Amino acid sequence: MSECTEDKIIYSFKNDYSEGAHPTILNAMISANMDQHDGYGEDSYSKEAVEILREKINNQNVDIHFVAGGTQANLVVISSILRPYESVIAADTGHISTHETGAIEATGHKINTVETSDGKLTSEKIKKIMDEHSSEHMVKPAMVFISNSTELGTVYKKKELEKISLFCRENDLILYMDGARLGAALSSDKSDLTLEDISKIVDIFYIGGTKNGALLGEAIIISNDRLKKNFRYNIKQKGALMAKGRILGIQFKELFRENLFFSLGKHANLMALRLGEKIEKLGYDFLSETESNQIFPILPNEIIENINKKYGFYIWEKIDKDISAVRLVTSWATKEEMIDKFIADLKSYSLSK
Amino acid sequence: MSECTEDKIIYSFKNDYSEGAHPTILNAMISANMDQHDGYGEDSYSKEAVEILREKINNQNVDIHFVAGGTQANLVVISSILRPYESVIAADTGHISTHETGAIEATGHKINTVETSDGKLTSEKIKKIMDEHSSEHMVKPAMVFISNSTELGTVYKKKELEKISLFCRENDLILYMDGARLGAALSSDKSDLTLEDISKIVDIFYIGGTKNGALLGEAIIISNDRLKKNFRYNIKQKGALMAKGRILGIQFKELFRENLFFSLGKHANLMALRLGEKIEKLGYDFLSETESNQIFPILPNEIIENINKKYGFYIWEKIDKDISAVRLVTSWATKEEMIDKFIADLKSYSLSK
Amino acid sequence: MSECTEDKIIYSFKNDYSEGAHPTILNAMISANMDQHDGYGEDSYSKEAVEILREKINNQNVDIHFVAGGTQANLVVISSILRPYESVIAADTGHISTHETGAIEATGHKINTVETSDGKLTSEKIKKIMDEHSSEHMVKPAMVFISNSTELGTVYKKKELEKISLFCRENDLILYMDGARLGAALSSDKSDLTLEDISKIVDIFYIGGTKNGALLGEAIIISNDRLKKNFRYNIKQKGALMAKGRILGIQFKELFRENLFFSLGKHANLMALRLGEKIEKLGYDFLSETESNQIFPILPNEIIENINKKYGFYIWEKIDKDISAVRLVTSWATKEEMIDKFIADLKSYSLSK
Amino acid sequence: MSECTEDKIIYSFKNDYSEGAHPTILNAMISANMDQHDGYGEDSYSKEAVEILREKINNQNVDIHFVAGGTQANLVVISSILRPYESVIAADTGHISTHETGAIEATGHKINTVETSDGKLTSEKIKKIMDEHSSEHMVKPAMVFISNSTELGTVYKKKELEKISLFCRENDLILYMDGARLGAALSSDKSDLTLEDISKIVDIFYIGGTKNGALLGEAIIISNDRLKKNFRYNIKQKGALMAKGRILGIQFKELFRENLFFSLGKHANLMALRLGEKIEKLGYDFLSETESNQIFPILPNEIIENINKKYGFYIWEKIDKDISAVRLVTSWATKEEMIDKFIADLKSYSLSK
Repeated sequence: MSECTEDKIIYSFKNDYSEGAHPTILNAMISANMDQHDGYGEDSYSKEAVEILREKINNQNVDIHFVAGGTQANLVVISSILRPYESVIAADTGHISTHETGAIEATGHKINTVETSDGKLTSEKIKKIMDEHSSEHMVKPAMVFISNSTELGTVYKKKELEKISLFCRENDLILYMDGARLGAALSSDKSDLTLEDISKIVDIFYIGGTKNGALLGEAIIISNDRLKKNFRYNIKQKGALMAKGRILGIQFKELFRENLFFSLGKHANLMALRLGEKIEKLGYDFLSETESNQIFPILPNEIIENINKKYGFYIWEKIDKDISAVRLVTSWATKEEMIDKFIADLKSYSLSK
Repeated sequence: MSECTEDKIIYSFKNDYSEGAHPTILNAMISANMDQHDGYGEDSYSKEAVEILREKINNQNVDIHFVAGGTQANLVVISSILRPYESVIAADTGHISTHETGAIEATGHKINTVETSDGKLTSEKIKKIMDEHSSEHMVKPAMVFISNSTELGTVYKKKELEKISLFCRENDLILYMDGARLGAALSSDKSDLTLEDISKIVDIFYIGGTKNGALLGEAIIISNDRLKKNFRYNIKQKGALMAKGRILGIQFKELFRENLFFSLGKHANLMALRLGEKIEKLGYDFLSETESNQIFPILPNEIIENINKKYGFYIWEKIDKDISAVRLVTSWATKEEMIDKFIADLKSYSLSK
Repeated sequence: MSECTEDKIIYSFKNDYSEGAHPTILNAMISANMDQHDGYGEDSYSKEAVEILREKINNQNVDIHFVAGGTQANLVVISSILRPYESVIAADTGHISTHETGAIEATGHKINTVETSDGKLTSEKIKKIMDEHSSEHMVKPAMVFISNSTELGTVYKKKELEKISLFCRENDLILYMDGARLGAALSSDKSDLTLEDISKIVDIFYIGGTKNGALLGEAIIISNDRLKKNFRYNIKQKGALMAKGRILGIQFKELFRENLFFSLGKHANLMALRLGEKIEKLGYDFLSETESNQIFPILPNEIIENINKKYGFYIWEKIDKDISAVRLVTSWATKEEMIDKFIADLKSYSLSK
Repeated sequence: MSECTEDKIIYSFKNDYSEGAHPTILNAMISANMDQHDGYGEDSYSKEAVEILREKINNQNVDIHFVAGGTQANLVVISSILRPYESVIAADTGHISTHETGAIEATGHKINTVETSDGKLTSEKIKKIMDEHSSEHMVKPAMVFISNSTELGTVYKKKELEKISLFCRENDLILYMDGARLGAALSSDKSDLTLEDISKIVDIFYIGGTKNGALLGEAIIISNDRLKKNFRYNIKQKGALMAKGRILGIQFKELFRENLFFSLGKHANLMALRLGEKIEKLGYDFLSETESNQIFPILPNEIIENINKKYGFYIWEKIDKDISAVRLVTSWATKEEMIDKFIADLKSYSLSK
């Protein structure tokens, strides 16, 4: 994943956190600005947000904590659960194994990676790792990490998740879902999952705010009673307990008070779908199917070079010496007009080639 | 430090992060909201904020990084510098040794604590620790941690700091200043220090935004060239590299564009001074001298109990069975009117006693 | 504790690990030398040693593991038990807090130290630490570390230990005893404890071989069922699972097959007692009472300097500008003749002074 | 690698640490037994052993430290060198990535693994990892770990090692060699390396005693000046500084006083060669070429099952449903007679099949 310059570009499809916050969220922050509140998530907004989330999840038996970012969520959750000699199983594309600068290892734990073509784990792949680890001379896998949507934009189906969960419960493995892009995942046409489903199928997960319209913030949801005790100690120790926790509370209250979280996800997916369809019509293939707000079209390097001067995005993978897959990410803030512009430019480069 | 209830209180003096952000900052965030920017602090606001800060510090030879919170700043800085067997020396009141849930030890390092009555370290106290550590059977102190203002509201004088710095340089110790409340410290009548002074006297420090009018954010300033290399790796690994780094950039730009940072600190100190003077007039003593925005009056427990039903604050220390010191913190947002109300109530409780 | 030179000295009282192994142990190693055995403690010697120890402890419900050294035992045990945010309470003289180069902190945990004059903890001292730690902004003490004999040569009485144990059980604290010098402790006239008592009063402890006649080796004894699971994983991960585990098994078999462990401890204590009595007769005071094989006479610095040219020992503590306490350690290998020589020399220096 | 039972077996080819110590070593320990020596490697034996090793290495500019075991050596060395965000590159078969229960990750560092068929790294394979790691969102590889002989019994040629070394120096990577079986490697017919070569080509390595005739002990050799400072602090902190360090000193003195280390390695290799040749004559293939004291014949599962009742060894890898590779390890203590017995039995099982 090599970086492209962004000066004077028309629009950036680099990621889903290029803008600030959705106006509804920002307005709520403005209204609440001068109220006094206790720090560290003990403010009334955070408490309300927890209640609202429990309603939306339709599960009163979950503990909920807010932290500022995704790497924080991952390192707090994973280090809070594993014993020193235990490891976590993840896809080789998993964020914890590739793009978190060894954050999990820095808390003392090995990540056992599994090759995947679509970013998804399966019970078969997990079993293979389990079979290879049988004595105290090796780490003991005790946790499974999955991302939904995955780092390749794919989403888990309920059946797939249930099968993994069953295997985990039979093998004493905690199942953890990184939901940095759970908004896009759950809003996908390809998804048949609800928040309630997830809260019952996995042991612990987080709902991403940063990539779905919030300024910052992720909500960690703990279903498994065994993982709940003293969780705030872990948050504090890792520097993830915000002094002005109110900021996280206000935002999650707004995201879930009505259905903003899901409508923002839907919009992002719709933009990706349109972008994908139009690129396909121009005759290009894709690295993976479009299931959420990340698409991976395969384009000639020459065209990539040209269009990258006008639009921000990452080159994802070199396919051969002539063509590469790029990653285009849409978001709650993407305007259809920008998609049309991109397509017009892509078309013009394609013709002139 | 026991917590007091906060329901239906008139005003909270619990801390300096009870409100949101100063309106100037909030407005800047609103204006910038829909602009697209690169993530992880590579946005133009963060870059501008760095340039503005270098100007204010009057030192072009500093590296500057923004993180979300103070514990994050401390654990990122300290773990980035120490070798595994090295320790950090701190006052026994130092935030890292008392109120960060072992965040520093969690990165592998012992804190050697020194008893203090006023929260300040001296070269003599540091020397004592150095003298006690002479072989590979003990940790090797390699860093000194000081807070300015301290956890007891006291501030360092330039001479005091220079003496510590000299000792550190002679003894191969890195000097690090936690500036969570540097705004109040530098704006104190008791302080003769400037940002420039600090950047030359210490090796690394941070300037706190959260406790001085920002929604969140601390600026880490690295003067010592040896500490600069690959610093962003440390930030990322500890989950402290914000995706929407723009939020930090915008806020520090506003705090330092003109003199907002200092005027907010001055206001907080002024409110503390007034509050302190009026409490003194009522005949009460103090645990320590008022030097910044934290004051520690000693009150009868009975009065504390009553007034705590109306005003939020922490009981800091039991003095004897009848009296205790409480901590009252003022901030950029404290209105004089609230001080008058508090004093009126304290007076009335004192008379009726 | 400053080091003294040892060249051409007559005898060293520096510590109880200056010689090799007791001949009985060495002979057993020679006999077993060419037998083939499985590695990593799965040899028949280690298995026999475990059975013999269970008999001596008179407690079949303990798990037993052998490791090479005391710091290893401490870091493996403590890191295997604590959750990341949990701390261990120890005397300020405790080996883990002073002479293990931050080994415990390197596994991520703070040590909460308590001042003591005699090296012993009490439930009152532990309670004080517990009272100070009440929220997630501080570490959560979850374990108590005691040494028996202590670093000052004192030994715990059964009642003292039971009182600590009761407090620990009421407060959800694991009680761990470092028995590096348990041989001397249990063989002391001042002790009314048996191995069986200890196994019932504490949750986990170790029996030191290195300081009581073995070449190397400590036996970790786990009474509390909750601490037993997967313990070998912890040993392996910290590099403490010896390939030729047979060496540890053979030695502990010999130490406990009959009563070698106790008779060696008794001899060491007897030598210390004699040495102490004779020094006392010369008119000198002691830093602490002689209870086991370490004594701390207070001598004029001038005499210390002279006698230190002939006998190895550490200067423990400067008392005032003229006198200091020194530490003299006797062992299973100390011959009475050396004590007589030391006393004769001390007497001669004392007279000539 | 599944374990096979060892009761009543004729001979174990499980590993090269099934027996005690070579008699020469044991005798030296007996002779030195009652001498008094300073602890922690400051005894005269350790000092002599260091001088003798420097002679044998023909390099006075190396620092030498002794530790008890291989996992200890690896975790002490690697954690002493890497900054928190740095990783180590290793073959996927490398001991640190497979059989040390996450010891390296427990010190905070990711291992970047590379697929190999013969256990050896190459500069090309290392480069691939380097190319994939280009920003602070990923760990920064800073070290290369190689084993010689490898976990598959192969040995490095001087040219291969020089090529890796050159790449490492150009890319600011520390080159570290795990020499748990360096005795067998250097004594191999396939090797053209000397200790001197290695000390000049790599930055740091260790010479294994445990697997080459010692009771325990590995010698860490540091060539690169940058890695020498305060190394004993690292050893102590990880529990690897033996109280009776004399035991390590005596053994390494004996191994290198004359050429015992090399003659023991030669013997082990010779036994493996004979064993291999005879198995080959019986018509069996091998997983890898025989280069040192580990061989990997591929046998029918039925025969494996039968012969494993009489001889100890590990099943290394399932080849297909009918055949598997087993690992046979010879050592300094293997008698030719046992090889003949094994071959006779294998022949008989092969015929009767």
